[in-house]
Amino acid sequence: MPKALIIGAGDGLSASLARLLAREGYAIALAARDIAKLDALAAAIGATAHACDAASETDIATLFAQEGDAEVVIYNPSFRTRGPITELVPADVQRTLQVCAFGAFLTAQQAARRMIPRGAGTIMLTGASAGVKGYPQSAPFAMGKFALRGLAQSLARELHPQGVHVAHVVIDGGIRGARRPESGQDTLLDPDAIAESYLHLIRQPRSSWSWEIEVRPWGEKF
Amino acid sequence: MPKALIIGAGDGLSASLARLLAREGYAIALAARDIAKLDALAAAIGATAHACDAASETDIATLFAQEGDAEVVIYNPSFRTRGPITELVPADVQRTLQVCAFGAFLTAQQAARRMIPRGAGTIMLTGASAGVKGYPQSAPFAMGKFALRGLAQSLARELHPQGVHVAHVVIDGGIRGARRPESGQDTLLDPDAIAESYLHLIRQPRSSWSWEIEVRPWGEKF
Amino acid sequence: MPKALIIGAGDGLSASLARLLAREGYAIALAARDIAKLDALAAAIGATAHACDAASETDIATLFAQEGDAEVVIYNPSFRTRGPITELVPADVQRTLQVCAFGAFLTAQQAARRMIPRGAGTIMLTGASAGVKGYPQSAPFAMGKFALRGLAQSLARELHPQGVHVAHVVIDGGIRGARRPESGQDTLLDPDAIAESYLHLIRQPRSSWSWEIEVRPWGEKF
Amino acid sequence: MPKALIIGAGDGLSASLARLLAREGYAIALAARDIAKLDALAAAIGATAHACDAASETDIATLFAQEGDAEVVIYNPSFRTRGPITELVPADVQRTLQVCAFGAFLTAQQAARRMIPRGAGTIMLTGASAGVKGYPQSAPFAMGKFALRGLAQSLARELHPQGVHVAHVVIDGGIRGARRPESGQDTLLDPDAIAESYLHLIRQPRSSWSWEIEVRPWGEKF
Repeated sequence: MPKALIIGAGDGLSASLARLLAREGYAIALAARDIAKLDALAAAIGATAHACDAASETDIATLFAQEGDAEVVIYNPSFRTRGPITELVPADVQRTLQVCAFGAFLTAQQAARRMIPRGAGTIMLTGASAGVKGYPQSAPFAMGKFALRGLAQSLARELHPQGVHVAHVVIDGGIRGARRPESGQDTLLDPDAIAESYLHLIRQPRSSWSWEIEVRPWGEKF
Repeated sequence: MPKALIIGAGDGLSASLARLLAREGYAIALAARDIAKLDALAAAIGATAHACDAASETDIATLFAQEGDAEVVIYNPSFRTRGPITELVPADVQRTLQVCAFGAFLTAQQAARRMIPRGAGTIMLTGASAGVKGYPQSAPFAMGKFALRGLAQSLARELHPQGVHVAHVVIDGGIRGARRPESGQDTLLDPDAIAESYLHLIRQPRSSWSWEIEVRPWGEKF
Repeated sequence: MPKALIIGAGDGLSASLARLLAREGYAIALAARDIAKLDALAAAIGATAHACDAASETDIATLFAQEGDAEVVIYNPSFRTRGPITELVPADVQRTLQVCAFGAFLTAQQAARRMIPRGAGTIMLTGASAGVKGYPQSAPFAMGKFALRGLAQSLARELHPQGVHVAHVVIDGGIRGARRPESGQDTLLDPDAIAESYLHLIRQPRSSWSWEIEVRPWGEKF
Repeated sequence: MPKALIIGAGDGLSASLARLLAREGYAIALAARDIAKLDALAAAIGATAHACDAASETDIATLFAQEGDAEVVIYNPSFRTRGPITELVPADVQRTLQVCAFGAFLTAQQAARRMIPRGAGTIMLTGASAGVKGYPQSAPFAMGKFALRGLAQSLARELHPQGVHVAHVVIDGGIRGARRPESGQDTLLDPDAIAESYLHLIRQPRSSWSWEIEVRPWGEKF
């Protein structure tokens, strides 16, 4: 039974990915800072759950020591601080870089060490529109998500010829969820629909790989 | 039974698309300059076949008069002339612009006129790496494929809010085929694998649409 | 005395370029469809003036037979048709491609044939924001200006190693002029200011060349 | 007498910028980790010199307390670690993010606080080709320089309408210097030539601002 390791928050897109991949026959391992959030989902799909600060070298190493045999590794964590450049708190900017980008590096490094010898595996990094367009009053998130995209592109060039698929998903729009219910007009991204695009990339044969895909609701301005 | 109209040459990617969409329950209409090429494929999947110069306003109008109820319209035609800028023949440059870009406009216009009132439909345009990177000694193809990408991006912004999905596929690499057999190492794109990415985009729910996807073989330098 | 050949309309940016380059010591040759427009400017700066349809192979060849010794060649012509994709007139779309892109190819070809043997020269192509972003209800202009950018990028890769500098200028915003006077707040591009960026690119030593620059007013949203 | 503050190493591009801006009438303030490196240059052009770790919040704050009246602020520091993803040392990846991106944020924040009230000023950030293309075996530098570009783009959108010019320079190629002498064929970037492009951007009137420019040698493949 192949395994998928999903790092990030316990609801929204991560939960949709976990449910979809479980249905498709993957054993699921979940990791998040707040493990209490994962309980209901883990129980529902028979997943393991790990407390893990994605920006911590030790935590990521520990996680891979336990779940490193995963064929699919997905990195979802995100953090942002917003506001005029003049008012931003440097420690929050640091945290944005650590969670959006450095943790993705740590994850990709651990995954690559295990996937390269197998000549197979998929590493997926969850990006945002902020990774392709730097918005005003949001410099830190632009920094973090641009950095994540740079990591993804560099790794695609480095790891594809070694049989490891790296893909970056640009989520352009708000995701429907408990705090953002939907009007029925699909003005928000349905996380189950996004998950189908992840699954498509995971299943691409190596003769036709994508390193990036953008998804947005039909009415989203871009 | 939904219908898919595929405009372009009769083998390679077009044939893979036709076979896959036929298997998925679409009635298939094929169009190409040389209808003789389409016979075997059309017979095999029960498709209609139309002689059509994709760059001809009259031909495209006639085609849509017959097959305009298609839910999915795919534009594949391509033409290129290569060489040092100093040696290019202007008439060939014209033909490149006509086939790569103007024919795609004609097709998208006919499709949009029929899809907008239905508030549904998918228009797919087949691009190339030349549409995102202008290579030396290949100025005409860069012009044609950049123009196609500009068309796709403009139409995605215009038609998505009207319920019509527009997508541009960047094919980055050679496609395996009769003239380019494969060594078994997947160094060329398998057209059946590419077709799966078209199908994925066709099936995306409107809450999570992509306007572009790039595909390339695992070992392709980019 | 070095020569600059400026192809395009007789006022606005072209006039600013002509006056600036004349002041900097260039002999100026002007070309436009409507030569009457050029009279006052040509007289003021001692320039030659040529009637020329930029999209005509014959006209461009004739122009270069007379002014082909120019060290600097600037292509400014633009044409656009706008509207919903469903209502566009195909002949106007053709004209957009011809003027924005095909004429630029003709010009670059003639210039390259003369500049390559000298191992020197500058070809500048005037683009627009539509060349990097396809706007809704403006598909033809997106096609034409994307094509122009593809031409520029391909030629930069081909001609830079032969000593010929190719540059594409993305004009993002309205240009101040007789029909668009300025409020004093610099909300429109001053054509004299744009011309300074052209001059900077012309003067770059070959050890540090740019193939593209974007200019926009300070308050322009992008 | 206007002032320019240049943060970064004491030779190469920084020295060329210092000498050029001094000739153009700017008082120069230099900052670098190793102040000994700055002595000869500072003496030659009458500049002040400051010891400063660009990634240190305290050091940057102290620097601006002394030199914060600068009209032009240039951020040059760079750090990189290279190698296969599997062998990179996390602490070096952190340092790359800190020097390439976080220090640029600290600098831009201090500069913006002083420039916004004046409604004037220029902030220039020195990027690399790694900021627009993620190369294999160089993931950390891609992360750092992509992040820097995201910062620059976000700040251009935020600060341009407040009268503060932000620009990002993509240096694509090796820079000629003591350790990399030139063959006479201009295969390396001449730092004096690059500096002219910085000066051009600094002098652009606000009606025609660029937020980015790329420079590379004529023979550089891209």
